[in-house]
Amino acid sequence: MFPSKTYLTRRNQLKRALKSGLILFPGNGESPMNYADNWFPFKQDSTFLYYTGINGIPNLYFLIDIDNDSDILFGDDATPEEMVWTGASEPMADVAAKSGITKIKPVKELDAYVKQQIQMGQRIHYLFPYRADLKIQLAELLSIGTGEVNKNRSIDLIKAIVAQREIKTDEELVEIEKAVHTTVAMHTHAIKNSRPGRTELEIAGELQSIAIGAGGNIAFPIILTKNGQYLHKHATQDILLEGDVVLCDCGAENAMGYTGDMTRTFPAGERFNTLQRNVYDIVLDAHNTGISGLKPGVLFKDLHLLAAKKLVEGLTGMGMMKGNADDAVAAGAHTLFFQCGLGHMMGLDIHDMENLGEKYVGYTAELTKSTEFGLKSLRLGKALKEGFVVTVEPGLYFNPFLIDAWRAKGKFKAFVNYDAVEKMKNFGGIRVEEDFVITESGSRLLGKPLAKTTDAIEELKNSK
Amino acid sequence: MFPSKTYLTRRNQLKRALKSGLILFPGNGESPMNYADNWFPFKQDSTFLYYTGINGIPNLYFLIDIDNDSDILFGDDATPEEMVWTGASEPMADVAAKSGITKIKPVKELDAYVKQQIQMGQRIHYLFPYRADLKIQLAELLSIGTGEVNKNRSIDLIKAIVAQREIKTDEELVEIEKAVHTTVAMHTHAIKNSRPGRTELEIAGELQSIAIGAGGNIAFPIILTKNGQYLHKHATQDILLEGDVVLCDCGAENAMGYTGDMTRTFPAGERFNTLQRNVYDIVLDAHNTGISGLKPGVLFKDLHLLAAKKLVEGLTGMGMMKGNADDAVAAGAHTLFFQCGLGHMMGLDIHDMENLGEKYVGYTAELTKSTEFGLKSLRLGKALKEGFVVTVEPGLYFNPFLIDAWRAKGKFKAFVNYDAVEKMKNFGGIRVEEDFVITESGSRLLGKPLAKTTDAIEELKNSK
Repeated sequence: MFPSKTYLTRRNQLKRALKSGLILFPGNGESPMNYADNWFPFKQDSTFLYYTGINGIPNLYFLIDIDNDSDILFGDDATPEEMVWTGASEPMADVAAKSGITKIKPVKELDAYVKQQIQMGQRIHYLFPYRADLKIQLAELLSIGTGEVNKNRSIDLIKAIVAQREIKTDEELVEIEKAVHTTVAMHTHAIKNSRPGRTELEIAGELQSIAIGAGGNIAFPIILTKNGQYLHKHATQDILLEGDVVLCDCGAENAMGYTGDMTRTFPAGERFNTLQRNVYDIVLDAHNTGISGLKPGVLFKDLHLLAAKKLVEGLTGMGMMKGNADDAVAAGAHTLFFQCGLGHMMGLDIHDMENLGEKYVGYTAELTKSTEFGLKSLRLGKALKEGFVVTVEPGLYFNPFLIDAWRAKGKFKAFVNYDAVEKMKNFGGIRVEEDFVITESGSRLLGKPLAKTTDAIEELKNSK
Repeated sequence: MFPSKTYLTRRNQLKRALKSGLILFPGNGESPMNYADNWFPFKQDSTFLYYTGINGIPNLYFLIDIDNDSDILFGDDATPEEMVWTGASEPMADVAAKSGITKIKPVKELDAYVKQQIQMGQRIHYLFPYRADLKIQLAELLSIGTGEVNKNRSIDLIKAIVAQREIKTDEELVEIEKAVHTTVAMHTHAIKNSRPGRTELEIAGELQSIAIGAGGNIAFPIILTKNGQYLHKHATQDILLEGDVVLCDCGAENAMGYTGDMTRTFPAGERFNTLQRNVYDIVLDAHNTGISGLKPGVLFKDLHLLAAKKLVEGLTGMGMMKGNADDAVAAGAHTLFFQCGLGHMMGLDIHDMENLGEKYVGYTAELTKSTEFGLKSLRLGKALKEGFVVTVEPGLYFNPFLIDAWRAKGKFKAFVNYDAVEKMKNFGGIRVEEDFVITESGSRLLGKPLAKTTDAIEELKNSK
C-alpha cells in the first residue's frame, strides 16, 4: 500500500468536499461459490481500497465522522480458532495504523454506533451496494427495506469520490503501469502460444496464471475467442483452427488492486490473410486517430465519433459502406459494425467507478448519456482532464444476427452495402486496445509498447 | 450433461420422496466482483445442476409441481441486444429439452405463478440460500423478511436430496474421476515445478491454468503453502526456500461441475530432510489406516479416531506425546496436532452438499456432531454406504499459536511433551489426501495413483 499520508490526504479532501455527516465505506465480504464457506478469490471494494489502502481482509467497515473529525475502522482481530485455519493475521491496530487510522472498534459495535448517530440527526452517506449481502446489511443498519437502499444512496458522496478518483496521481500511475506490464506479458504469451489445435480455454488459463503469478489476478473475465464478433464472448473449449482470427481482451490487476486492460487480435496460424489484414488496418487507423486526439478539454464522445468516421471510411473503401461518412455516423449506421464505445476510464476498477454510475463518472449535467444503440454503450463521453486514465479500443464486429436483423428491416440501407457485408458473416471481429494517461498537452501510453501492426504481430508470433 | 433420462429419474425419485407441494430450485446468478457487471466465473448451484444438468446459464429457476406432476423451467431467451455482447445462445426450449423438461416460462412469470400456488395452499419447498441475492429474491417471492428465509427452508427437501446425492451412480463416478485425473495432473505439476526461489502464487497460478485448460476450473481456492501448519492457508507471494516443506491441497471441477480434491506434501528442494520424512511417515500410516477401514457400515467417525490414534502413536515414538494412545485420543490431546477431520463427502461440491447442512449430510438423528474442538470440524461421522465418495486426509500441523496457548494453560500435559513439541514450531504441516468411492466390500481409489511415499515423491520431483 501507499504511505499512510496518501490515505490521510485523500480522506481530508473528501471531508472538505462533503462538509458534514457520516460516510460509511463497507469493505467487501467473501463471495460464496457453491456454499457459504467456499469462496471466490477475495476482491476488496475499490472505494474502500482508495480511502484506506487495506486489501485482502474481508468484513471491515470504515466510518468517517466528518463533524467529529474521526475516522474509525470497525474490524475484528483473528481468534486463536481462526488462526488454526488461516494462520497469523496482522492485529487490527497495525492494519489501521498503516492507513493512518487511530480508532478501531469491534464490528459488533457498528450497528449501535450508526443508529445512535442517526438518532442524533446525522446524515449517513453511502454508495449503491453492488453486492446483495451488503444490501441486506445496509437495510438492517439503516432500518429500511432492501428496496430502499439504493434510493437513499448519497449523490453528494458519489460526486465527491468521482472528482478525486478520476484524477490519477503519480504514485497511482506507477501501480497502474505495473498492472499494464503484466497485461502486456499476458498478451505476448497469447500471441505466441495461440495456434491451431489448442482450445481457447487452455490459453486463457495460461494468461490467468501469469496474472496470479505476478501477485494479483485477472481484472475481469478473459475474452479469448475466435468469435470476436461478439463483444464480451469469453473463452470456451472451442479449438482454434488455421484461418481463425483470435481476439484477446484481458487485463491484470496488481497486488494493490490497480488494473490494466488491453486487446490484441491475431491469427491462430502464422499469418493474417489479406482480408483480415485489410480489416485490421481500418481498426488500427481508427485506434491511432483516437489516440492522437487525446488531450485535456477534448470530449471523449467526439473522439468516439471521429474513430467511428474512420471506420466508416475504411469500410467504404472496402465496398461495405457507401455515401457520406459524416452522415453515416450521424445516422448511427456504423453501429452495425461498431456497437460499443471507444473506451472507458480505468483505475482500481477495469471500468473505473462503474458502480458509482456512468452518469457521474462518464458524463456531466450538461452532457448526458445517449440512449441510442451504440452511443448508449459509450461509458465515457465528457471532456478529458490531465490525470484521467482511459482505454482506446475501437473495433469492427461482423455480428451475423445483427446483419440479418437489420438487413431484413432495411435499416441504414442508404449507407450499408448488405450484399458485401453478407460475405463477412463468418469473419469474426477485430479490436485493438491500449491504456493512456492524459497529460498536460496530450497523452502517454501506459506499459511497454506491444506489437500492434499486422507485420509486428506476425513477427512476434513467429519469433522464438 | 447426462442423457435426459438421468434427470427425469432423479426428479421422479425426489417427487416420490416428497409426495406433495412445490419444489423451487433457483439456479445461481452471476456474482459481482467490484461492480454489478464485472463477475467472478459463473458457478451453477449444485442441486440445480443435479436435477437439471443445466450448467453455464445464469438466472434460471426450476420448479417442480408434484401434485400436478409438472416440471417448469423459468428462463429467458437471449435478446438480439444480448447477442451483440455474448453471441448466440441456445433457445430455452432446447436447453430444457435436453433435461427432459417440456414446460418453459419467462422468468417474469415466476412470481405470479408461485404466489398463486401459495394462495391455493401449496407448500413451497426450498433450500437455505447461501448467496445473499437469492435470499432477497426468495424473501420477495414468499412475501417474508430476509431474516425468515432460512427458518422456512424445507427439512424434508434436504433429507430427500441428501438420500439421493450421497449415493454416486456409475455415470457420476466417471465424471468425478475425470475431475480427479485433472487434479492428479495439477499435483504432478506442483511437485515437479515447486523449487526454491519460486513464489507460492506462481505455482498456484499454473495449477489453476491446468484446471481451466481441462474445461472446468478450480473447485476451491488453492492451498499451496510452505505454512501448511495452518489448515486453509492459501498461496501467497512468499518465496519457497531450500528446506521448506510445501503443502498443496487443490482440486479441479470438470465441465459438468464434478470435483476432485487431493493433497500432497513435498520438499521445495530435491529431498525431504530426516525430520520431514519421519513426520510424513506417521501421516502416511494414518492415511493408509483410514483407507483400509473404508467399507459399508463403518462409522467414518470411528475411522477418524483410529487415524488419530495412529498419529498419537507416531508422535509418541518421536517423543512428542506420551501415555496411553487410546486415552490421549479420548481426551482429545491429538487435536494439538490434528485439529480437523479425517475427510468429507465429495461430489458436485468439494464438501458435498455442505450448503444443506452437515447435520443432515454427515450425521444422523442418532449420531449428532460433537461440539468439541477437533471433532466439531469432522464433516462426516455417519456410517458409510456403497456409493459414497469420500476424502481421506489426515495430517499433522504444528501450529505455533496453539502450541503456545495450550502450553501456557498446561492443556493435555499428561499426553504432550511440550519441550519436544517446542522444537517443531517452525516445522510446518503435512497432509496426504486422496478420494475414494465406497464399494460393496471396501473402497476404490479414484483417479490414477500418484506418488505418495517420500521416496516416490522425491523420484517424481527429480524426474525429467
